[in-house]
Amino acid sequence: MLLYDYHPAPSPRRVRIFLAEKTLSVPIRAVDLAKREQLADDYRAKNPRCTVPMLELDDGSCLWDTLAICEYIESLQPSPPLFGRSALDHARVVMWYQRIELDGFLATADVFRNANPAFKDRALFGPLPTAQIPALIERSRPRVRQFYLDMDARLAASEYVAGDFFSLADIQLLCVVDFAMGWGRMPLPAECAALAAWHAKVGARPSASA
Amino acid sequence: MLLYDYHPAPSPRRVRIFLAEKTLSVPIRAVDLAKREQLADDYRAKNPRCTVPMLELDDGSCLWDTLAICEYIESLQPSPPLFGRSALDHARVVMWYQRIELDGFLATADVFRNANPAFKDRALFGPLPTAQIPALIERSRPRVRQFYLDMDARLAASEYVAGDFFSLADIQLLCVVDFAMGWGRMPLPAECAALAAWHAKVGARPSASA
Repeated sequence: MLLYDYHPAPSPRRVRIFLAEKTLSVPIRAVDLAKREQLADDYRAKNPRCTVPMLELDDGSCLWDTLAICEYIESLQPSPPLFGRSALDHARVVMWYQRIELDGFLATADVFRNANPAFKDRALFGPLPTAQIPALIERSRPRVRQFYLDMDARLAASEYVAGDFFSLADIQLLCVVDFAMGWGRMPLPAECAALAAWHAKVGARPSASA
Repeated sequence: MLLYDYHPAPSPRRVRIFLAEKTLSVPIRAVDLAKREQLADDYRAKNPRCTVPMLELDDGSCLWDTLAICEYIESLQPSPPLFGRSALDHARVVMWYQRIELDGFLATADVFRNANPAFKDRALFGPLPTAQIPALIERSRPRVRQFYLDMDARLAASEYVAGDFFSLADIQLLCVVDFAMGWGRMPLPAECAALAAWHAKVGARPSASA
């Protein structure tokens, strides 16, 4: 297997942390998004969305979606479980993963990519040129703030995102919060004590630096 | 179990078709989005995103993401398989599901919800008021067209979306294409012969009218 990665980006970090929690080591090939290497013909032939992460299997087939990659790795290496221990746990992990993707990741990406001159005509992921829309920045900031508040309420009621067990949903939230705080320059609201405590706890796991 | 549904909407249709393919019958409770019943306190307490579909289990726990619901049903009733027959099949189904969601469903929703006066201040799903941005309509139309072309290329090379087997990825594409052609008023481009042939074939399955 070969993992295609761009170290500064939030999405492939999720897979690196997932692998680190599994104590799995997969060879990595860097794809420099800043140099637009993801748009090169050979990469595009493998991944038409031109995104990282991508996992290339030994038979040449390629998985280019984070959730799909993590579900596949979970099936190869079930321990430690990162989708919980039951079918209902698994569904809850997927549910929270998706919510964090829609409410947190995409909203942050709208703030970041519509504001940054480096993303001119690349306001969305993928190969299609996409114009920046400044109004999206201001529309998306309150979404990120509400996302923080919602996740704070969740973590005030639950030890981890999907329940009483660490899972991919926590990895997802860690990467999205760090993306929003870092590249998105949106600090956690002062009132989000439960989210801040969770963030300190999960961010201190050795896997977080993978 | 109880499925919360709004019949005209594209998202819960995916779950109805999934259940029909499994020959499973689940009691349905209608949530009238046109009357904003999804924002009522009792519904919101169960589903903070205020979306349909939602599956309420007998123990009271609620799943409010389509993919999570379908994975859970698959675990209860594996036959006929709607995520393929292997872990790699499953990962491919999830990968294509996610791609269709991002490139097709969200782009179509941007066209539809930013244009329609009924969605004033509700340009995005969820409880947070969100202003319409007319520029998103024009930015999103070429995305939907490219999505059609990409899926046509895929279906020229593959009998079904995720491989040589019917799966949730086909259900997802059927619902998104019908959403884009119907509510989005974006017909298939004439050159998309493979996509049109697939659409006729999958749309003729009895489950499509669920």
